[in-house]
Amino acid sequence: MQSVVLGRLAEDQGRSLVQVGPCTIGAHRLVLMAGPCAVEGGAEMVSLALRLKEMGVGVLRGGAFKPRTSPYSFQGLGRDGLVMLARAGEAAGLPVVTEVMDVRDLDLVMRYAAMIQVGSRNMQNFGLLKEVGRTGHPVLLKRGLSATIEEWLLAAEYILAEGNRRVVLCERGIRTFESHTRNTMDIAAVAAVKGLSHLPVIADPSHGSGRRELVAPLARAAVAAGADGLMIEVHAEPAKALSDGQQSVTPEQFAVLLTGLAPVAGAVGRSL
Amino acid sequence: MQSVVLGRLAEDQGRSLVQVGPCTIGAHRLVLMAGPCAVEGGAEMVSLALRLKEMGVGVLRGGAFKPRTSPYSFQGLGRDGLVMLARAGEAAGLPVVTEVMDVRDLDLVMRYAAMIQVGSRNMQNFGLLKEVGRTGHPVLLKRGLSATIEEWLLAAEYILAEGNRRVVLCERGIRTFESHTRNTMDIAAVAAVKGLSHLPVIADPSHGSGRRELVAPLARAAVAAGADGLMIEVHAEPAKALSDGQQSVTPEQFAVLLTGLAPVAGAVGRSL
Amino acid sequence: MQSVVLGRLAEDQGRSLVQVGPCTIGAHRLVLMAGPCAVEGGAEMVSLALRLKEMGVGVLRGGAFKPRTSPYSFQGLGRDGLVMLARAGEAAGLPVVTEVMDVRDLDLVMRYAAMIQVGSRNMQNFGLLKEVGRTGHPVLLKRGLSATIEEWLLAAEYILAEGNRRVVLCERGIRTFESHTRNTMDIAAVAAVKGLSHLPVIADPSHGSGRRELVAPLARAAVAAGADGLMIEVHAEPAKALSDGQQSVTPEQFAVLLTGLAPVAGAVGRSL
Amino acid sequence: MQSVVLGRLAEDQGRSLVQVGPCTIGAHRLVLMAGPCAVEGGAEMVSLALRLKEMGVGVLRGGAFKPRTSPYSFQGLGRDGLVMLARAGEAAGLPVVTEVMDVRDLDLVMRYAAMIQVGSRNMQNFGLLKEVGRTGHPVLLKRGLSATIEEWLLAAEYILAEGNRRVVLCERGIRTFESHTRNTMDIAAVAAVKGLSHLPVIADPSHGSGRRELVAPLARAAVAAGADGLMIEVHAEPAKALSDGQQSVTPEQFAVLLTGLAPVAGAVGRSL
Repeated sequence: MQSVVLGRLAEDQGRSLVQVGPCTIGAHRLVLMAGPCAVEGGAEMVSLALRLKEMGVGVLRGGAFKPRTSPYSFQGLGRDGLVMLARAGEAAGLPVVTEVMDVRDLDLVMRYAAMIQVGSRNMQNFGLLKEVGRTGHPVLLKRGLSATIEEWLLAAEYILAEGNRRVVLCERGIRTFESHTRNTMDIAAVAAVKGLSHLPVIADPSHGSGRRELVAPLARAAVAAGADGLMIEVHAEPAKALSDGQQSVTPEQFAVLLTGLAPVAGAVGRSL
Repeated sequence: MQSVVLGRLAEDQGRSLVQVGPCTIGAHRLVLMAGPCAVEGGAEMVSLALRLKEMGVGVLRGGAFKPRTSPYSFQGLGRDGLVMLARAGEAAGLPVVTEVMDVRDLDLVMRYAAMIQVGSRNMQNFGLLKEVGRTGHPVLLKRGLSATIEEWLLAAEYILAEGNRRVVLCERGIRTFESHTRNTMDIAAVAAVKGLSHLPVIADPSHGSGRRELVAPLARAAVAAGADGLMIEVHAEPAKALSDGQQSVTPEQFAVLLTGLAPVAGAVGRSL
Repeated sequence: MQSVVLGRLAEDQGRSLVQVGPCTIGAHRLVLMAGPCAVEGGAEMVSLALRLKEMGVGVLRGGAFKPRTSPYSFQGLGRDGLVMLARAGEAAGLPVVTEVMDVRDLDLVMRYAAMIQVGSRNMQNFGLLKEVGRTGHPVLLKRGLSATIEEWLLAAEYILAEGNRRVVLCERGIRTFESHTRNTMDIAAVAAVKGLSHLPVIADPSHGSGRRELVAPLARAAVAAGADGLMIEVHAEPAKALSDGQQSVTPEQFAVLLTGLAPVAGAVGRSL
Repeated sequence: MQSVVLGRLAEDQGRSLVQVGPCTIGAHRLVLMAGPCAVEGGAEMVSLALRLKEMGVGVLRGGAFKPRTSPYSFQGLGRDGLVMLARAGEAAGLPVVTEVMDVRDLDLVMRYAAMIQVGSRNMQNFGLLKEVGRTGHPVLLKRGLSATIEEWLLAAEYILAEGNRRVVLCERGIRTFESHTRNTMDIAAVAAVKGLSHLPVIADPSHGSGRRELVAPLARAAVAAGADGLMIEVHAEPAKALSDGQQSVTPEQFAVLLTGLAPVAGAVGRSL
C-alpha cells in the first residue's frame, strides 16, 4: 500500500484523538454511538436519547437523509429530522452524528450535527469528501460495501489532504457471497487500519450483520480487536421501525449488550 | 425482484430507444462509444475523434472529471477537459458523453455533453440520480462495482421516477475475488436487465476486464448476449495514457476489434 | 502468474486437441455436451440421447454420482446410473462424460465413460487430480466456485504433471455477491485461459447462470469469446427433474438455442 | 435455512462436547490447537511440542499431507510427517490433529492422530465426509473458502448423518475481494453457527488473516464472539517455514498472544 504511506495518513504524530462535543474518540474510554436508523418522530427521539445518555452513550445517532435502494422506500424526514435529532441531543446533553448524502446539504447538516457521517455508498463521492475536508467538522467515514482497506484509507486521505484531520473510520461490513448475514463484518480491518494509520476506528455491528442476535457478539469482537468505539442501532420498538428493524436492538437489549461488553473492554485495557 | 416490477421500469410500452444526437441507442444498429479514459489535450482529442468517427463510432467519450482512488492521482482537466472534448466532438460531428461526479457540476456538464455518465462509484449517489432525473438529458448509468442487478435497476428507477426516461444502462464488471482481471464482466447481467426492463443496455469491456487483450473477446461476448452497444477506451498511445493505459486499445487495435465484431453483430441480427 | 508459466501448461507445442470418441475438442467444430443434470431412468436417457444426437450433440452428459449440498437430497443413481448412461450413449452412438467425486470410483467410472468430469467442488481434490493424471483418460476439469484463474490452471497442471495431457477446461460460473443468478459466468476467463495455456476450454452456461432464460445468451457469449464447446443441461421435462430443473432447457428450447448459436459460431470462424 | 433445521444438527440435546484425548472441546476452558503449518522435521517438532504444552496448548497441530495450489510446491512429508507429529505429541503428552486429504489415507491418519481435520478445500468432498462419519473419530471441519454458513453446516450434517457426532467446526476465513488479508475472517459466523447448531466451533486466525500481526487481535475477537477454541500456526522460525511462514507466529509471540487473550476469555466467562 505504497500510496497510503505517502499521504497524511503516514505522518507520524502519534494516534489521532477526535473530539466530538465532550467525547474524545480514540482515548482510553470507548465511545458509544447509538440511536435509531432513522429519526421518526420528535418525542420518541427525545425519550430514547435520555435513556441512551443514562446508559453511557456518548454520541446520539439518527438518520434524517436516508440512502435507500428504492426511490419508493421511506427517504427520511430531511430537515425536520435534523431538527428533531438536534433537539433530542440537546435534551439529553449528547452531541449528534448524522449522515450527509448530498454536498448541497452539508451546511445545513453541520448546523445541527456535531459530527458528519459519510456513508458507505458515498465513500468515494470525492466531491463530498473534499468539501467535508474543507470544514473543520469531525467526520465519521464509513467503509464502502466493496471498498478495500486501501481504498478506504485513501478516501480518508481525501479529507485529510484538504486540511481536516478530525476523521474517524467506521468498519460496517463488506459485501460477500454469504447471505445469512446482510454483510460480512471484517473485524481484521479494524486491527489493520489501526496499524496502517493514526486515525481512530469504530465498528458498526448493526449494519455489519443485519441481524439483531449477532450485534452483541460482534460488538465484543470489535472491541477485543481494538475498536475505539461502536455505533449501534437502538430503537424503542424495532418491529415498528421504518427502516432496518431487523438489526435494531431495544434499549433493554442494548443494556444487556453493554453489561457483556464492559468486561471485554476492560480485558483490552479500555473502559465503557 | 418485486420492487423493480412495481416501478416505471415495469411499464409496458415496448423497448425504450434513447436518442443521443444522431444516434439511436436500442435500435438495430449497435452504438459504439469510444475515446480515451481521460481527456488529456485538445489536439490529440480532435485527431482521435476524427479517426473514431471514420471507424463508425457514434458517441465520443472522454473523462474531464475523473474519480480517482487517491487524491494524489491525476484528477482530470475539469472544465478545460470538457471544452476540449466538446470541440473534438464538434470537429468530428460526434455527440459526446462524459461523467459527472458532483451534482454541482451538472449544469456545466450538460452544456458540453449530449449524454451524462453516472459512474460506478456514484450509482447510489441518490441526490445526483434525482437531479439527473429532473433534466431531460440522456443518461448513461453504469453499474456499481458491487451493485446487484436489482440495485442497479432501482438506481435507474430513481432517474425514471423524476420523469427522465432517457436512461441507458452500462454493465462494466463487478468486483469479485478474481485478480487476473480488474473486474469480472457479468455478461449474464446484460441479458438479464433486457428481460427485466425496457431500457437499452451497453457494455464496457475496458473497465470490465482491465486488460487490453480481453477487450475484443468481451466485446463480442456482450454483443452476442444482446448488448445494444459498447463503450471502449481507445487511446492513440496507451503507454503514455495518464490513466487506465493497460485497458486502452490503440485505434489500430480498435479497427481489428471492429472487424471481428461485425459478423457477431450480424449473427444476432444487429449491425455496426 | 509465474508459477503457471513454469509448468507443462507453458510448453509450446501449439494448441492441444483432446479426442473423446469421435469428437475432437479444440478443433474448428465446436463440441456440444448435453444431457440431464442427473441420470434418472434408462428409457428416458436413451430417448433423450437419440434426440440430442440428431441435433448435433457430440458428447452425452449425465450425473450418476451427484455432489449435493445436503445429505438428504437425491444423491444420484450411482453404478446403476452409470450403466444407464453408457447404454444410452451406445444406443445413440455418443461418447459419455460423467463426474467422478471419489477417487475410489475412478476405475468404475472409466469403464463406462469416455471422459471423466472433475467437478467444481473437487477442483482442488489433489489426490483425485493426481490419480486422474495417471490415467490416459480425457478429463473435463471444471473451475471451482471460488477458484482464481491461476488456481484453476494449476489444478490442470496437477493432471498434466502426472502425464495426462488430455485435459479440457470448463468455465461454469464463480461465486459472487449477485443473487439474481446462481453463479456469475466469468466469460473473460474463457478468453484468458486460452491465452495462458494450450488447453481447450468449454463453457457451462446452465450452472453458470442457474436460470433457463439466460442459457442461450450466455452460450452465444461464450462462443463469441472463443470457447471450444459448451456443456448444457437438457431435460425432457425440467419441471420434473430431480435436480437443477430451473436451469435445464427442454430439447425444443435446446434446438432454438442451437439455431441462434450457429451464426455466432460462424462469425468467429467456427462451426456447430 | 430450513434444510439445516431438519437434520441431526437440529436435535435438541444441549450443546455437544467433543473429547480429544484429555481435552474437552465446547466446555468452559477454551481449547488451544497450535503447531506448524507443516511438519518439517522430527526434532524441531518435539521441541516445539514441549514448549506449546507448557504454554497451555491442548492439541498439537501439524500438516503431513498438505493441500498445495501448485503441484511443484512442498507437498508435506506424508507418512513420515505423521510419525514425527505423533511422536512429538507423545513426547509432550498432547493429542494431535492433522489433515486428511484423501479418503484412502483415512485409516493411516487415524492411527496417528486423535483428531482428523477435513480442510477447506475438502469441505464438500462428500465421499470423505461420509467415510469420516462412519468412524467414531473426532473431526475438525474447516469451513470452505466460499462456503455459506448453510453449506458448512450441511457438510457437518453429512458426518453426523453417518453416526459420528464428534464434530468441531472451524471458521478460517472466507474468500472476498479484499487483498490486504489472505482471507476475510467471518467472526459473525462463529456466533451464528453456535445459534444454529449444537456443535462446538473454533477459529483459525492464522489462515483467517494470513498476516502475523493480525493473528492476536483476531484471536481475541473470535473468543469474544463465543469461539470454543483457537487453532494457531506457531513455528520456531517462521522465516524458514516451508509453507505459510507469513502467518505463523513464534513461540514468543504466541506467549504474548496468550497473555492478551486470557483476560478476554475471562471477560466472556471462559478460561484458557
